Amino acid sequence: MNSKKYTSPLLLVGGGADEIDVQYVANFTAPDPFLFLGHKGERIVVVSSLELGRAQRVSPPLTPVSPDDLDLPKGKRRDLGRQAVALLRQRGLSAVGVSSACPVGLVRYLESAGIKVTVRQEPVMPGRLCKEASEIKALRKIQRTTAKAMQTAVDLIRSSEIGADGKLFVEGEVLTSERVRAHVEMLLIRENAQGDELIVAGGDQAVDPHERGTGPLYAHAPIVLDIFPRDRASGYWGDMTRTVLRGKPSPEQRKLYRTVLDAQKQALSLVAPGVSGKEIHQRVCDVFEAAGYETGLEDGVPQGFIHSTGHGLGLQIHEAPSVSPAGGPLEPGQVITIEPGLYYRGIGGVRIEDSVVVTEKGSSILATSPKVFVL
Amino acid sequence: MNSKKYTSPLLLVGGGADEIDVQYVANFTAPDPFLFLGHKGERIVVVSSLELGRAQRVSPPLTPVSPDDLDLPKGKRRDLGRQAVALLRQRGLSAVGVSSACPVGLVRYLESAGIKVTVRQEPVMPGRLCKEASEIKALRKIQRTTAKAMQTAVDLIRSSEIGADGKLFVEGEVLTSERVRAHVEMLLIRENAQGDELIVAGGDQAVDPHERGTGPLYAHAPIVLDIFPRDRASGYWGDMTRTVLRGKPSPEQRKLYRTVLDAQKQALSLVAPGVSGKEIHQRVCDVFEAAGYETGLEDGVPQGFIHSTGHGLGLQIHEAPSVSPAGGPLEPGQVITIEPGLYYRGIGGVRIEDSVVVTEKGSSILATSPKVFVL
Repeated sequence: MNSKKYTSPLLLVGGGADEIDVQYVANFTAPDPFLFLGHKGERIVVVSSLELGRAQRVSPPLTPVSPDDLDLPKGKRRDLGRQAVALLRQRGLSAVGVSSACPVGLVRYLESAGIKVTVRQEPVMPGRLCKEASEIKALRKIQRTTAKAMQTAVDLIRSSEIGADGKLFVEGEVLTSERVRAHVEMLLIRENAQGDELIVAGGDQAVDPHERGTGPLYAHAPIVLDIFPRDRASGYWGDMTRTVLRGKPSPEQRKLYRTVLDAQKQALSLVAPGVSGKEIHQRVCDVFEAAGYETGLEDGVPQGFIHSTGHGLGLQIHEAPSVSPAGGPLEPGQVITIEPGLYYRGIGGVRIEDSVVVTEKGSSILATSPKVFVL
Repeated sequence: MNSKKYTSPLLLVGGGADEIDVQYVANFTAPDPFLFLGHKGERIVVVSSLELGRAQRVSPPLTPVSPDDLDLPKGKRRDLGRQAVALLRQRGLSAVGVSSACPVGLVRYLESAGIKVTVRQEPVMPGRLCKEASEIKALRKIQRTTAKAMQTAVDLIRSSEIGADGKLFVEGEVLTSERVRAHVEMLLIRENAQGDELIVAGGDQAVDPHERGTGPLYAHAPIVLDIFPRDRASGYWGDMTRTVLRGKPSPEQRKLYRTVLDAQKQALSLVAPGVSGKEIHQRVCDVFEAAGYETGLEDGVPQGFIHSTGHGLGLQIHEAPSVSPAGGPLEPGQVITIEPGLYYRGIGGVRIEDSVVVTEKGSSILATSPKVFVL
């Protein structure tokens, strides 16, 4: 827990601008913004009577302070600026650090009250970047749930029948993106996980990688399944993508899938301490280029390999480090996704994604799931 | 749409610090932070190629700008500060307004690049406070779904059998908070809505109003059901609470329920333009005091009426105006919750909540649902 210590006082906004950092350091969050003050190893949270009970039960223990104990005028007790000034004065502090995410309104209020505010340039919780054993355990757990959810989606599509118009049918009803998504979410709920904005996108819909997908799914076209649930107990995220096709693929579709699969394998094999996210991303670009796939605009629509190779995964679905042209050297304990993809209108989109932890010598996949294209 | 106009340039962080305001003004959001610039009626968003397709399909149309068009060094194209400076220079702007929620790091970067930054004290989207007809329609829709979800939870508890140990059983299995919650969430998913952290808390668990509830539910004790889902299509929230008891209530439990119900009725009857949130809250306090219910700490645990009477409801689950000692005069179009509650260890918690829109002459409940205590 060394990474969670700090000596100079640090003021963060839990349940708001600094929600994830506070969740990490205090093991506590709330639906509305609240103040966190870290000072000499003490972790103070200013929470209303509504949250006091929960805050008192946190382990290791926090120091919960009620706004009622800060001598604020009635009707102003919820004001974070007034709370912060009163708390800092109570603790004899005239200077405090904040994160670069701190709301500028709060900083200006503190300064107007004579508090010296230092904006930290670096991450305020650098320990979040390299995961401890307990965090990796939590990430493996939610990723196993993600793999289960993926399997249920794939099984549902596999069980479909192909209608005369090419639409997929299950039990006599059209199989839509919405129906597959609901099917996956039901499983996630039973596993105490939560998925929002999951992607089930077929054909040209998948060419827009952040289009969630709507309406009927069709045979003979790739369907991208991108499942990223949050474990409600631990707060950690899983992330996995598979691409499947029910029916008969064209030679172009087969080649697209094979190339993305090859790029993903090569990228995964590179992951190790000291290797940079930039190098891994470049390898993917090289594989795609060698296979003749170009990236650029077509009628104003981006086509090809139009996103980065991956991102960090933890208490946030997208966090450092980046596996892109901006990515630096990897370190043991970092958890990243490797998710190359290719997207062309008329052929469709293919993306294959696994999440891995960087180990002392290489990497380890958090949880496995078969990679089968044609169902 | 007058309320969504602005003349002096305004820079907001969509998908981040200003997510809800940008969703409101641009009808667009994304999973990662992105810049929004409002200037002379033009609404510009800086989005990666990943989001470009979705941004191009928004109505009324946005002006999507790709970071690739801002002449930024490779590896720095995702930096919001650099994007903002480049965009403002491209548009010939040397001064810009931001919200008080703007990350201080972004403000400092803009200032270091010679941009004059004005922090708006007032809400940057004041139009959000009073809902238009289309917004009220969306709120009624999700509240009808909330009422349906409430009914399914109540029906499930009503169908339970009481075991020898007082635990509730459905189809031979213990009825837990988790099971009721999953049951509700399944319905919400089918309605394209999403519930997280829904409260199903029985007995003393409900005395901590933000405790979600865990483990077996028991007969002869109040169970608080607080359901607040978000409509995935519109982004608007519903909010409703009922308290039920399976079995036989004690006289104390009956009196607690009757008093909260009376307070809620009186508070609802007060809601009208010009009446302040403070007055409504005071009426609830008066009803509770007249019935002999005291509020304060007992062994360090808050007991009694330990939260405010209500809050605004819209694209955020908690927004202005407040129905509390800090609440000002209500205006037509405002949507608020009215949710008095009383909590005592040994007796349990009772909270009853409806969401209402302030009309020209009084108020209108968004959607109704029966209030039945004993099942």
